[in-house]
Amino acid sequence: MKTTLTILKIGGQIIDQPKDLHDLLQKFTTIATPKILVHGGGKTATKLAQQMGVKTQLINGRRITTKSMLNIVTMVYGGSVNKNIVAQLQGLGCNALGLTGADMNMITAIKRPVKDIDYGWVGDITKVNTTALKALLNIGVTPVLAPLTHNGKGQLLNTNADTIASTIATALAQDYEVELIYCFEKAGVLLDINDANSLVKQLSKTTFIDYQQQSIIKDGMIPKLTNGFNALKNGVNTVNICSNQNFNSPILSGTELVIS
Amino acid sequence: MKTTLTILKIGGQIIDQPKDLHDLLQKFTTIATPKILVHGGGKTATKLAQQMGVKTQLINGRRITTKSMLNIVTMVYGGSVNKNIVAQLQGLGCNALGLTGADMNMITAIKRPVKDIDYGWVGDITKVNTTALKALLNIGVTPVLAPLTHNGKGQLLNTNADTIASTIATALAQDYEVELIYCFEKAGVLLDINDANSLVKQLSKTTFIDYQQQSIIKDGMIPKLTNGFNALKNGVNTVNICSNQNFNSPILSGTELVIS
Repeated sequence: MKTTLTILKIGGQIIDQPKDLHDLLQKFTTIATPKILVHGGGKTATKLAQQMGVKTQLINGRRITTKSMLNIVTMVYGGSVNKNIVAQLQGLGCNALGLTGADMNMITAIKRPVKDIDYGWVGDITKVNTTALKALLNIGVTPVLAPLTHNGKGQLLNTNADTIASTIATALAQDYEVELIYCFEKAGVLLDINDANSLVKQLSKTTFIDYQQQSIIKDGMIPKLTNGFNALKNGVNTVNICSNQNFNSPILSGTELVIS
Repeated sequence: MKTTLTILKIGGQIIDQPKDLHDLLQKFTTIATPKILVHGGGKTATKLAQQMGVKTQLINGRRITTKSMLNIVTMVYGGSVNKNIVAQLQGLGCNALGLTGADMNMITAIKRPVKDIDYGWVGDITKVNTTALKALLNIGVTPVLAPLTHNGKGQLLNTNADTIASTIATALAQDYEVELIYCFEKAGVLLDINDANSLVKQLSKTTFIDYQQQSIIKDGMIPKLTNGFNALKNGVNTVNICSNQNFNSPILSGTELVIS
């Protein structure tokens, strides 16, 4: 039987709340089996950009990673967010190691080809170094991944944290029973975003497509769920979406993605 | 016979010059035996502090690491500087891994006790995790250390890069033939700071003390050399101070520290 590997992705708003973040890291630390943390960015990058006079460029509502913005996310995601999480986990007795995709050549990507939109310094993942990840997990290290990759030629790239989580989950599914958990401020997938009681406990791909067409599921939830269903299709054992409050409770409540 | 381990510390001004930095990293990559890179900060942190409206606090001419300044150095040293060096080294074929003292619990420190001056969030090193460093070196990884440590209780601390270099050199001297090299923009120890021909090719502790008393050696060179002589006294094989131009040249020219 394969060892269980928990991959927890934590979202922006949790990162911006020191107490919520610390509570979640504490729960994460109690997982005795191998584990990986993937974190997003939070609002610090936007705030820092304002302070530095760097304008957020949007094209068709999508944020563009200019050279200045890449520098900012490298400082914030790779520096302050990542290193503070690592220091806290160490303080909780978890042997954490902060990584970008460049460290140990962990995640290689290509700069997103320009079609209709030039997204700038954004990376589409081409390869996960599972050998290096497994070597770290085998010696009891907990990788903490920032949403940054590299092109293998010296260039860092900005990559969505949800995508990093599902891609590494898929890449490790051959070797582990992978539990992928997306943890954010909401209880899970909600039929009414303002009503926690409208939680969808199980969501199939077919229903997801229905809900999308009815605009019940929209915005940032679409790529998150698409990433989740891709992981499930490609061998990841379980994919759950839950709130930081419910994470690692005796019964993991939230939304479970199901195949059919 | 023990394996040679090169520990290269690179200083601020090199980091601020992209071409110089890249050339130096290229030379560093050609070292076939195990190696560790330790980097300082450069002027980016000061510049960012100005942009963010964070004032540099000085007491008796010494910079104080306030909470805001710690956040800035974590972003700059642990984020942009460290990760760009790692990405460049990977591009050059060197399997680099960026680390602060918190990562894998690499360097533990205590917040400097307040005597006459409260230096703020500055860490004095108490322990180097040589087991983890050796484990990384054994699998062909090149650690790239940012000048940050942690207290093991969740708190990051600012620590001088020269001190980190000499402390890890000393800690690893039992296991390796350690070559410690401080690389900066000057040719080495100069009798006249404006004259490269005044290079001191060999410097003993006694002469160092003489030169210090005559104010020939002053300012930042004093702690650098004190660190170097400490390393030499504590089992490090060779300690050299040289310029980025001369680093890894057929004959390493610069200043060699000698015991007597």
